[in-house]
Amino acid sequence: MTEFAAELVDVICEVTRGKAQLHIPEISGNEWINVKECLDTSWISATGGKYISQFEELLVAHTGASFAITTVTGTAALHACLILAGVSGGDEVICPAFTFVATANAVKMTGAIPHFADIDRTSLGIDATKLSEHLSKIAIRRDGKTINRESGRPISAIVCMHTFGHICDVEALASICDEWKIELVEDAAESLGSTFNGKHAGTFSRLSALSFNGNKIITTGGGGAILAADEEAADRARHLTTTARLPHRWEYDHDLVGFNYRMPNINAAIGAAQIERLEQYLGEKRHLQSMYKAAFADIDGVDLFEEPKGCRSNYWLATLVLSPGRTAERDRILERTNDAGLGCRPAWRPMHLLAPFLDSPRMELPVTEEMYGRIINIPSSPILGRKTEVA
Amino acid sequence: MTEFAAELVDVICEVTRGKAQLHIPEISGNEWINVKECLDTSWISATGGKYISQFEELLVAHTGASFAITTVTGTAALHACLILAGVSGGDEVICPAFTFVATANAVKMTGAIPHFADIDRTSLGIDATKLSEHLSKIAIRRDGKTINRESGRPISAIVCMHTFGHICDVEALASICDEWKIELVEDAAESLGSTFNGKHAGTFSRLSALSFNGNKIITTGGGGAILAADEEAADRARHLTTTARLPHRWEYDHDLVGFNYRMPNINAAIGAAQIERLEQYLGEKRHLQSMYKAAFADIDGVDLFEEPKGCRSNYWLATLVLSPGRTAERDRILERTNDAGLGCRPAWRPMHLLAPFLDSPRMELPVTEEMYGRIINIPSSPILGRKTEVA
Repeated sequence: MTEFAAELVDVICEVTRGKAQLHIPEISGNEWINVKECLDTSWISATGGKYISQFEELLVAHTGASFAITTVTGTAALHACLILAGVSGGDEVICPAFTFVATANAVKMTGAIPHFADIDRTSLGIDATKLSEHLSKIAIRRDGKTINRESGRPISAIVCMHTFGHICDVEALASICDEWKIELVEDAAESLGSTFNGKHAGTFSRLSALSFNGNKIITTGGGGAILAADEEAADRARHLTTTARLPHRWEYDHDLVGFNYRMPNINAAIGAAQIERLEQYLGEKRHLQSMYKAAFADIDGVDLFEEPKGCRSNYWLATLVLSPGRTAERDRILERTNDAGLGCRPAWRPMHLLAPFLDSPRMELPVTEEMYGRIINIPSSPILGRKTEVA
Repeated sequence: MTEFAAELVDVICEVTRGKAQLHIPEISGNEWINVKECLDTSWISATGGKYISQFEELLVAHTGASFAITTVTGTAALHACLILAGVSGGDEVICPAFTFVATANAVKMTGAIPHFADIDRTSLGIDATKLSEHLSKIAIRRDGKTINRESGRPISAIVCMHTFGHICDVEALASICDEWKIELVEDAAESLGSTFNGKHAGTFSRLSALSFNGNKIITTGGGGAILAADEEAADRARHLTTTARLPHRWEYDHDLVGFNYRMPNINAAIGAAQIERLEQYLGEKRHLQSMYKAAFADIDGVDLFEEPKGCRSNYWLATLVLSPGRTAERDRILERTNDAGLGCRPAWRPMHLLAPFLDSPRMELPVTEEMYGRIINIPSSPILGRKTEVA
C-alpha cells in the first residue's frame, strides 16, 4: 500500500520538479501598470473606473458571450443569475451533488432548495440521461410550472457545473431544460477558456457565472462575472448587482431588493491584465496535462482524467482517478503528497453528505460517491507547464 | 426662490473653492507600497496574505473592539452579523426607515422582514423613546421570544444606524434590547472614527458592521468588516464568512450554509494604508465642518447638522438641514448645486416608500418623512478641510 503512495509522490515530483502548490496565481504582466493607474487617479471602487468596462469587454471578446457584468465573487454572480432566472423562495433547483459548496449555497441564498443530481464519469458534470429519467419519474407540468410531485415544490432551474474546467453534457441538459421549460444556468466558475464544439463555457445558457477567485485560471484577488446572452438579461444583471438603484441624478430610489455585488475597479484592473495571459496559461496547462499523462502512462492503479469528446478543456485542475480497487489508499496518498510539499486534494465532499444539505431532495448518487473516493487533484499552476528555453 | 438656491451655491463654493464631489477617496499614503508587495508576492486573494490580519489588527486598535473580521462589502458584514445574532427566515428586524437601502436589504437577505422605526432629529438615528412606546404597544414576550402581536412574527434583532457618522441614541436602544431580550446590531457603515462618551461606534453591540466602500471615510475599493465583542462571535464570524469550511488538511467539509465573504488581501492592503490616515481625515473633516458652520452662520432658512451631545462624530457627510418652510426648494437646490459641479444629494428615499418594502411593518414615521424633505448632503472630502501651509 505505502509503495503505491510513494510511487505517486515520485511521479508528481518528476513533473513538478519538487514542491508545488495546487494552483497559484501569477502576477507578472500589466497588473502593476493597471493597478498603479487606479491608485494614482483614486479610481479604485466599483463606481466608475475604466477597468471594469475594459475587463468586461475582454471577457466578452474571450468567451463570445454577448455581455459580461463583473461581480465581487463567483458566488455573487451565480446568486444573481439564479434570481434573474426567476428562482424564488421555496423552489427547487437541480444542481450536481459533485461540486464546490458555493453552487448549492447560491441556491440556498435565493431561498430555494438544491435538488441533487448524479454525474457521469466522462465529464464529471450532471448525467443528462439519469436526470431525464429522474425528472420523468418525479416531475409533472402543472399550471405552467414543473413541479416535483414528491415535495410539491416547483423546479425552477438547473445549474450545471463544468468540473475542473471540463464542459459537462451541456447540450443534452439544454434539451432537457427545453422539454421541461426550466431555465439552464451554467456555473462556469472553473471553466474560463474551455470550449465545447468551439463554443465557450458559459455561453450555452442565457445566464452563467464565472469566478476569479485566487485559485482560478485567472484571478482578481476575489471576483466573478455574469455572462448574459441578451441585453435585457445584462441590464437586469447590472441593476440587481448595483442595489437596484433607479437612474436619477441625485435621488436614491430602488425598485427591488438588490445587492452590492459589483467588482471594484482595482480588482478589475488586475483582471484586465490577467486575461491578457489567458491564452498562454491555457497552452501551459495543456502542456502540463501532457507531461502528467506521459509520466503516469506506466503506473498501474491510476489514470489521468481527460477532457470529454468535443470539449477543449482549460485543464484548470489536473486530476488523478484511482482505480476502484485503490480508493482505500486515497487518504494515504493525500497525506504522503502533502507531506512532500505537493498541493494535492480530494474532490469536494459531495453536497448530500454535508450537514446543511442532508435533507435536500436528490436522485441516487452512485457515481458522485464513487468519484469522490477516486479523485485526487494534483499541482496545476500554469508555470509547471511552461516550456523553458534551452540554452 | 431661485435666489435662495443660488445663495447656497455661492456659500458652498466659497468653502470648497469651486467644483467638488460629494466624497472622494484619497490614495496618497502607503497604498502603493502595500499593493505592490501583494502583486510582487502574488498574495492577492482572501486566502492568506498578511494585510488581512494587519488591517484587522489596525481596526481593533482604532475602534477598541475586541475582534475585527474583514469582509468583501459592508452589506456582507451586516448580513453575517444578523445571521450570527440569530435572525432567521420569517423573523422581523427593527431598523430605521431613514437609512441607505443596504440596511434593509441585509435584513431581507436573512429571509427576515424589516420593521421600520422612526428617527429623532438630534441624531438622525432610531428614536429610542418612540421605539420603546411602539414595542409596548405591539410586542409581547412569549415562549422566550419577543413577538409582534400584529403579525405573529418574532422580533429577533434591532439594527441601529449611525447616520452620516453621528452616533444614535445607542445606550437607550441597548436598554430597550435588554428589556425585550432582543439583540442589538450596529450598522456602523458610516461611522468609523466616531465615538459616543469616548466609546467607538460599533462597540455598543456584540456584533457590528463597518463599510469601506469607495465613498466612505477610508476605503478598500469595496469592503467591510465585522466588529465582534467576544472570541466566540469572532470565530463564528470567520467561519460563516469562509464558506463554513471545517478545518482539515485537505477535506472540503462544511457544516453550515456559509458565504464567500472575506476581503481579498489586495483590498486589505489598501485598507491597512488608508487607516494610517484616519486621524488626519477626522481632523480635516471636523475642520471642514467648522468652515461650513462659519460660512452658513448668517444664512437664513438653513442650518448645518451638528453632532449630538456626547458624540464626537467623524462628520462623514456634511449635512444641511433646510428650515421646514424651505422644503419645496430642495430639488431646485440639488439641481443648482449639481449644475455648479457641487456633489450634493438628498437623504435616501425612506425605506417604507421603496417598492420592495411597501408592505413592511412599521411605526408612524413623521420625522423620517420630514427630514427626507429637509436634508441635503454637501461636499465632504477630507481634502476640503485641509489646512494649507502659508508661504
